[in-house]
Amino acid sequence: MFQIDRDSKTLLVDQVRQGILGGIETFHWVQGSRLPSVRALARQLGVSVFTVASAYEGLAARQVIEARPGAGYFVLPVRGDEPLGEMDEAVGPANVQGHFLYRALDPVRYELPVSAGYLPPDWLADAVPPTVTGRLVRNALASSRPAPAAGSDELRGAIARRLRDLHIDASSQQVVMTLGATHALSMIRKVVLREGDYLLAEDPSYLLLQLKSIKQPDFNLITVPRLRDGPDMDAFEAAVARYRPRLFLTQTLVHNPTGGSTSPSKAQRIVSLAERYDFHVVEDDVYGPLASQPTPRLASLDGLRRSFYVSSFSKVLSPALRVGYLVAPTALVEPLVEAKMCDLLCGSALDETLVTDTLHAGRYQQHLITLNQRVMRARATARQWLSKAGVIFDDRSPDGLFLWGRMPDHLDLPSMIEQAHHAGIFLAPGSLFSHGRHYDRHLRFNVAYCNVPAFKAFFQAQLALARAT
Amino acid sequence: MFQIDRDSKTLLVDQVRQGILGGIETFHWVQGSRLPSVRALARQLGVSVFTVASAYEGLAARQVIEARPGAGYFVLPVRGDEPLGEMDEAVGPANVQGHFLYRALDPVRYELPVSAGYLPPDWLADAVPPTVTGRLVRNALASSRPAPAAGSDELRGAIARRLRDLHIDASSQQVVMTLGATHALSMIRKVVLREGDYLLAEDPSYLLLQLKSIKQPDFNLITVPRLRDGPDMDAFEAAVARYRPRLFLTQTLVHNPTGGSTSPSKAQRIVSLAERYDFHVVEDDVYGPLASQPTPRLASLDGLRRSFYVSSFSKVLSPALRVGYLVAPTALVEPLVEAKMCDLLCGSALDETLVTDTLHAGRYQQHLITLNQRVMRARATARQWLSKAGVIFDDRSPDGLFLWGRMPDHLDLPSMIEQAHHAGIFLAPGSLFSHGRHYDRHLRFNVAYCNVPAFKAFFQAQLALARAT
Repeated sequence: MFQIDRDSKTLLVDQVRQGILGGIETFHWVQGSRLPSVRALARQLGVSVFTVASAYEGLAARQVIEARPGAGYFVLPVRGDEPLGEMDEAVGPANVQGHFLYRALDPVRYELPVSAGYLPPDWLADAVPPTVTGRLVRNALASSRPAPAAGSDELRGAIARRLRDLHIDASSQQVVMTLGATHALSMIRKVVLREGDYLLAEDPSYLLLQLKSIKQPDFNLITVPRLRDGPDMDAFEAAVARYRPRLFLTQTLVHNPTGGSTSPSKAQRIVSLAERYDFHVVEDDVYGPLASQPTPRLASLDGLRRSFYVSSFSKVLSPALRVGYLVAPTALVEPLVEAKMCDLLCGSALDETLVTDTLHAGRYQQHLITLNQRVMRARATARQWLSKAGVIFDDRSPDGLFLWGRMPDHLDLPSMIEQAHHAGIFLAPGSLFSHGRHYDRHLRFNVAYCNVPAFKAFFQAQLALARAT
Repeated sequence: MFQIDRDSKTLLVDQVRQGILGGIETFHWVQGSRLPSVRALARQLGVSVFTVASAYEGLAARQVIEARPGAGYFVLPVRGDEPLGEMDEAVGPANVQGHFLYRALDPVRYELPVSAGYLPPDWLADAVPPTVTGRLVRNALASSRPAPAAGSDELRGAIARRLRDLHIDASSQQVVMTLGATHALSMIRKVVLREGDYLLAEDPSYLLLQLKSIKQPDFNLITVPRLRDGPDMDAFEAAVARYRPRLFLTQTLVHNPTGGSTSPSKAQRIVSLAERYDFHVVEDDVYGPLASQPTPRLASLDGLRRSFYVSSFSKVLSPALRVGYLVAPTALVEPLVEAKMCDLLCGSALDETLVTDTLHAGRYQQHLITLNQRVMRARATARQWLSKAGVIFDDRSPDGLFLWGRMPDHLDLPSMIEQAHHAGIFLAPGSLFSHGRHYDRHLRFNVAYCNVPAFKAFFQAQLALARAT
């Protein structure tokens, strides 16, 4: 939940109080839930019973929690949308290790990007057929024109047709090409959010959200815990009721970084709440094609009335391409295209042509199946040796490209990440994915890089060394 | 200057008053300059002497202008940075013909984009050597990695070396790859401008500035008249003194759309004023490579202390590519890369590799020379027949890709643009380039499309018909 920093100048009792406020603020404890007993929390944090009792009494005096004799301490309802105070320092993005974050956003400089979000070059060697690259000279460069602002009509049509397989019923007019999924998310934020609006996300989730300057317009970020089958729905309902967010950002299939998929019943509940509380949902499905057990997409349940569907070819065809797309409710297509024009006029016709031709070449579906199988095999192998080395996996059946593992307690994780860095190995600590700075003992592993002997040797040596000392 | 709309519900006297306020607001008349005589303006606008006299008296009563007996009416100093009022409706972007504007921002849907800003495919057929496209499969796709956030190091280095030929002394670290020049301008605006800041531009200038939603953050746009040798410097000094803008956006070489280049002495004066009034300058040099008579770039005079240099390969290699770049003062590089990450992580490694390999293939310089000669020949031919057909060119020696011509008075320009549209010919009225909605009798011609027989036939027929009726 939260940790005590013994080197900090902040009093222990204040650290405990701030930690509990942080847990309430990030919806780990919602209204009515019972806090750990004074004794249990004291043991867990390694502080005295007196310290925890003082922190609880202080919070009870502020009417944030209440003591129920014989039963323990309970969280009281929070009024208004003001933060509980003292929160920024405790759980805000200011404390994210900026150092790690910048590396994590630009992992291409590493030889072994073990925590990165893209596949190795040789896994994608056949993704674009040679016939397509051959045609490129004739088709894209020789008919050298800018791409239309909304993207190639042919490609938008091909995407709309493919979406029917996912039971997402969209016209090609609703498909807008973007420069990758990140660009799609940024366009949607700009069009939907106004200054001061609330954006609801999950914890852990999307790395980029931890970058302060992402807030254009200046929205407020709130998070709810992500469980293995989707968001914590008690926390979710409390958060939408309290903050009335304009936008909820989620990944239904193979959530990044945890690998879980949202259950259909939770997805259905989110759609209902979106209707009731009048917010939009952005379903980022960029890793969806790498799920071995597909479940329904949220956009198909909602019928694209309040939801945006976002995906990309950069992951499964080539990270050297920037071709993603969004599918939007019809009324929002025009402002989205306009936002794109203001930022960069249009995408790369060369890249769009390459994707169009690849889809038409007829091997794409088979490529996805092969890739999927390869990811599954790599996942099984990696999980096995990582477990043996001491990594703890909380979830028994995650899926997709990532493994999300907790490091053994005796390991000095920041020091290992630093040593990996110097060995050309990119490792991202879990706290980078967490607005509440939780998961600081976790690592995100990209299974496609895990079984490379150089990484295996490095990692096993590190863990053996930690055990020995 | 401004026109009278006889169908408007606004009284003629109010239209004249608003028109004069517009002229002062857009620095066509600066402090101390003499307005036209009552009689001359009445004749020019086709209204009564009484109407103009009433408008002048109203403005004199508001102390915007003053009467000097025997000498005429003179513009008084304007205090503060408040608009003179009633301006938004009269000269604001709200009146831009949105209809034309949207077409103009997405001209690729036309067969003959005569007013567009890019070259025809066959002019660029040899721009990317076949050896480069051949290598593409091996280099870019086969080593399928994302581009670094700031862009390919190799390409940034190659650009920094080429900039030395323009006497722009930049390290490769100061070069940031962008998705075209529009993207570079949008990144700079986001990093430099705060809510409510003033952006100074020229009139006429960059089409996209007329799009209301470009204002993220919500800056104020002010313009000064563009003359054949650069901005009107009296207006420029009045504007920077009054509004203290944060950013001045300009094109030193072959200004778009007028084709003039800023004289070295004006460029030097702008650099001094930037120092004195503490603003940044963005030099958009996207059309610079198509100038036949290169003059010094502003960034070379300033030494990149207060200036940004922006250019692109999309114009001269292929509009199917989105590869541009900006060169920034060192201290601003990091926030610019961060702004890029927030919006779209990185550019297309495929496109960047294609440009890198083309620069290394050693034919690029020769390609530019050939292209330049072809533009000059097309310009001479087009100018000759357009003049003969009745188009009036104010400037005797413009340069670059565009001709900026005034249509004969008897021609119904909006109707001709509409007919051209239905014939698949894209024509952009001059008012689209003007924040003050001036130049509504002008057209921007891309010389590379002007000599196509289909356009020539259409245009000559239209002008002959107009003469006959």
